[in-house]
Parts: sequence; C-alpha cells; structure tokens
Amino acid sequence: MNYFKKTPEEMRLLIRNKDFKKPTSGIAPGYAQGNLVILPKEFAYDFLRFAYRNPKPCPLLYVSEPGDKNLDPVAKESNIYTDIGNYNIYLDGKLEENISSAESYYKDDLVSFIIGCSFTFESELLKEKIEIPHIVKKKNVAMYDTNIKLKGSGVFNGNMVVSMRPIKSKDITKAVMITSRFSSVHGSPVHIGNPEEIGITDISNPDYGEFAGIEKDEVPVFWACGVTPQNAIKKSKIPFAITHGPGHMFITDIKNSDLVNY
Amino acid sequence: MNYFKKTPEEMRLLIRNKDFKKPTSGIAPGYAQGNLVILPKEFAYDFLRFAYRNPKPCPLLYVSEPGDKNLDPVAKESNIYTDIGNYNIYLDGKLEENISSAESYYKDDLVSFIIGCSFTFESELLKEKIEIPHIVKKKNVAMYDTNIKLKGSGVFNGNMVVSMRPIKSKDITKAVMITSRFSSVHGSPVHIGNPEEIGITDISNPDYGEFAGIEKDEVPVFWACGVTPQNAIKKSKIPFAITHGPGHMFITDIKNSDLVNY
Repeated sequence: MNYFKKTPEEMRLLIRNKDFKKPTSGIAPGYAQGNLVILPKEFAYDFLRFAYRNPKPCPLLYVSEPGDKNLDPVAKESNIYTDIGNYNIYLDGKLEENISSAESYYKDDLVSFIIGCSFTFESELLKEKIEIPHIVKKKNVAMYDTNIKLKGSGVFNGNMVVSMRPIKSKDITKAVMITSRFSSVHGSPVHIGNPEEIGITDISNPDYGEFAGIEKDEVPVFWACGVTPQNAIKKSKIPFAITHGPGHMFITDIKNSDLVNY
Repeated sequence: MNYFKKTPEEMRLLIRNKDFKKPTSGIAPGYAQGNLVILPKEFAYDFLRFAYRNPKPCPLLYVSEPGDKNLDPVAKESNIYTDIGNYNIYLDGKLEENISSAESYYKDDLVSFIIGCSFTFESELLKEKIEIPHIVKKKNVAMYDTNIKLKGSGVFNGNMVVSMRPIKSKDITKAVMITSRFSSVHGSPVHIGNPEEIGITDISNPDYGEFAGIEKDEVPVFWACGVTPQNAIKKSKIPFAITHGPGHMFITDIKNSDLVNY
C-alpha cells in the first residue's frame, strides 16, 4: 500500500485499526504532525503557561477541552487515545508503559496538548533543496540535552532539548529564513555552530536519536525540540501523563502551508 | 519635566505617586507598554487559552503568579495595582468603577496578564518614516467592532476589535513587513481596504477612539486591537476583573527592540 498517498484521516484509521504500526516520518506529506502531551486538568494551566513561556520548544497547535477524545477542529473523526501507534505512559514522572493504545488510561479530566513537530519545517527545507543529512542517511535526527534554561511554570521547568541538523554553510541563511516563517513548528534555530556554548560536549554522541556525521562544508545548526516538554514532565514527577512514543506522531488535518506565520 | 527622558521605572513611580496622571502614549520611548487584564485564578486558564487561541488580538507579554503585585521580570520594583494611572473595575461584566489605584481590590488569588500594545509597532512605523494620521493630528486611534469571530475558550468569546490606520498606498507593503516582525504587539494587519467585508459599515464613525480622515492616496489598514480582551471580559460576565483605563497603559522595562520576532 502507498501510505504517502493516504489522507490524514485515512492514516489515523489505519493506525487505530493496527493496520499501520511504523513511525510516521514522511507519511501524509503536506500535513502537520504533532507531539502529544496528555495531562490531568489540574496541571493543564501550569503546562499551558509553560508552553506560552517557552514557545520555541513547546509551540502549541491545539489544546482540547477536558475529557475530549475527538480533536475534530484539527483532526476530523479522530480519537487521540487510539490514533497514534505508540504511547508512553508516565506515572510520577517515570515511564510506566509503552503501549499501542491509550484507551485504557482515558479519564474525563484529561486534557490533550498537540505540539508542533519539526517534520513540517524539514519538508519546507527539502522543498527548497536544502540537504538534511539524517534524512539522506535514513537515520533519526540527533538530539541533545543543553544548558539552555527554560522559563519555569508551576511544577514544569528544566533545560531545552535541541535537535541538530548539519547544514551547508552556503545554505544556513536560507535555512534560518525558511524556518523562521514556521514559528508553530519550533521556528528559527536557537544556536548555530559552537555546540559547547550550549553545553554539548560531544557532538558525535547525542542524548537521543542518531549522529549522522558533519561534513567539512557543514555547520551544526540547532533547533528547539519537541522532546523538551517530555523531559519537563519527567522532571515534574506529576502523578500521570501520556505522550506519544518516539517517532510516532499524531497526524493532523492541518496543512503545513497553513502554518506559515503571517 | 521632560517625561520623554524618564526610564520606565521612574515613570511607574511618578504614576504611583500621582505625580503623572496623563495617558501614556509617547512616554518612555523605546519601551513596550502593555494592556492589563487581572482576573481571579479560577478564570486564568480559560483566559490564557483564549489568548493562545487568538494571538493577534491577545498577544501575551507576561503572566503573573496568583497574588503577585510586583511584575519584576518585566517591570522592576513595580506594583501592578498602583503603577497605572487609571483602572477599570468590572463586576459581572459591567464597568463598576474607573479609579486611579486598584489597591483596594487586591486579592491573593488574582492573576495579572500583560498584553502587547500597538504603541510599539507605531513607533517602529514612525522610525521608518511611515506617516500615521491620528498621531499627526494628535487624536486617539479609530477602533471598530467587527464580524471576525474569535476562537472561544470557556467563558471567553466574541468578535475581534480592530484599530485602523490610513496608510499611503506606496507604504502599505512596508507597513505589513515591519509589523509582521512584531507578533507580540498584534503583528501584521488582519485586513487591508474594504471595511464592509469585516462588518464595518461606516468607517467615519468608529466604535471607540476618533476618526482622523482618510486621504485619496491612503487605504484603511486594520490591525487586531487590545480592546478585544476587554470586550470578551464584558461578554463573559465573570464576577470580577480589572483592566487598565483607556490610554493609560502599563509601562514595562521590555525594550521594543527585544520584541522583534526571531
């Protein structure tokens, strides 16, 4: 089956019915995919304020009402508890379980947050012929813990996690300009070159994902990363949270082209 | 006294001591001024989500902790209950009182929201030699109710209020580009020309402020306006809210130049 020709709605149904179980990178091209955070209403205000205070790592695409399963305004006929192939369940900040459906954890006080994902800006970079080494090499992007302090909100705080893409020196200006137009999917880079200045001591050894090498004509370019809120949730030790599992994002009906800043 | 040479901190003290009672337009140039909304914590989540869902009329510059009087991170040694010259007190959505200090209404469950104000982008337009008629004619900007529906959040909903500035046809592109770089102070225009399309039937008769005329070589350009959240508060009929009084903004320590999108 050609999963690249399916609509977001069709893909969500395939995932729900366990007919598609792979990571979602490259699936339903042209549509935004999102990181998921589900929290009890009790912590929703602090998390919303955390996202507002740290818009680069936590750019919000949608916030549900408490108890909503269906995220109709951004994903028709969806069920956020079944339409991702892989969920992490956190109890007291610790990973309790990694499962293919979160239905059994549903409660009517839970609020879903959909956070923008770098897949959108990567597809915009590719459109403009900017090479992204980890995509060429079919690896996961390299991600790093940093010393960049976030603005805290209630129980949520910590440091920023960044993703790194080696970009050719001649293309960096273009990459900055393109990604700056997409602030709801992490926006422009937070740092360019000199990894040690943001606390990265060994660039070849990422904290998450894979290192795909850096060529002589390339400079490491760092963007705020959607893993950041997951780390803040772990650090908060709040009693309960659900997130998407690594690489398995929520496929929305939002067109990438509708996310351009205006 | 030359109030244009005072620092934001000095101006806040003069206002607190009732030594300066005038509107704040043009005061402490180079520093951002903000719209104020104070609400009980009970409504803070809905309002924060309302602001996130409607970033053009409600661009947030700061959210306090409940009970904070001092907004130190954006205004050193400040007291948000005394450092504005004029406050509106709303009970059940109705204007109860217009007073020069809100101290007597302080409660430890109140949350302060500072919302970006068009003074910042006006000063950027003036720097680039774009003429703003109401400033030349020393009038208040013209503001209008529209048919542009906002995204609701809990008790908060309604239509967008816009401000209108007639801009010379040759300067409109420049005005769009400049204001688009300042999304935290309403950003780019929401509408250009054709007032009737957004429900404005008589451009010469604004719902708030004053009409300063439109010349033949000018087009009416509409920006989202900070009066919008005040209207949403009135419509919500929530038991209690404080806002700044018209023209009397909160003078922050944030430099306009630090508000450029990046």
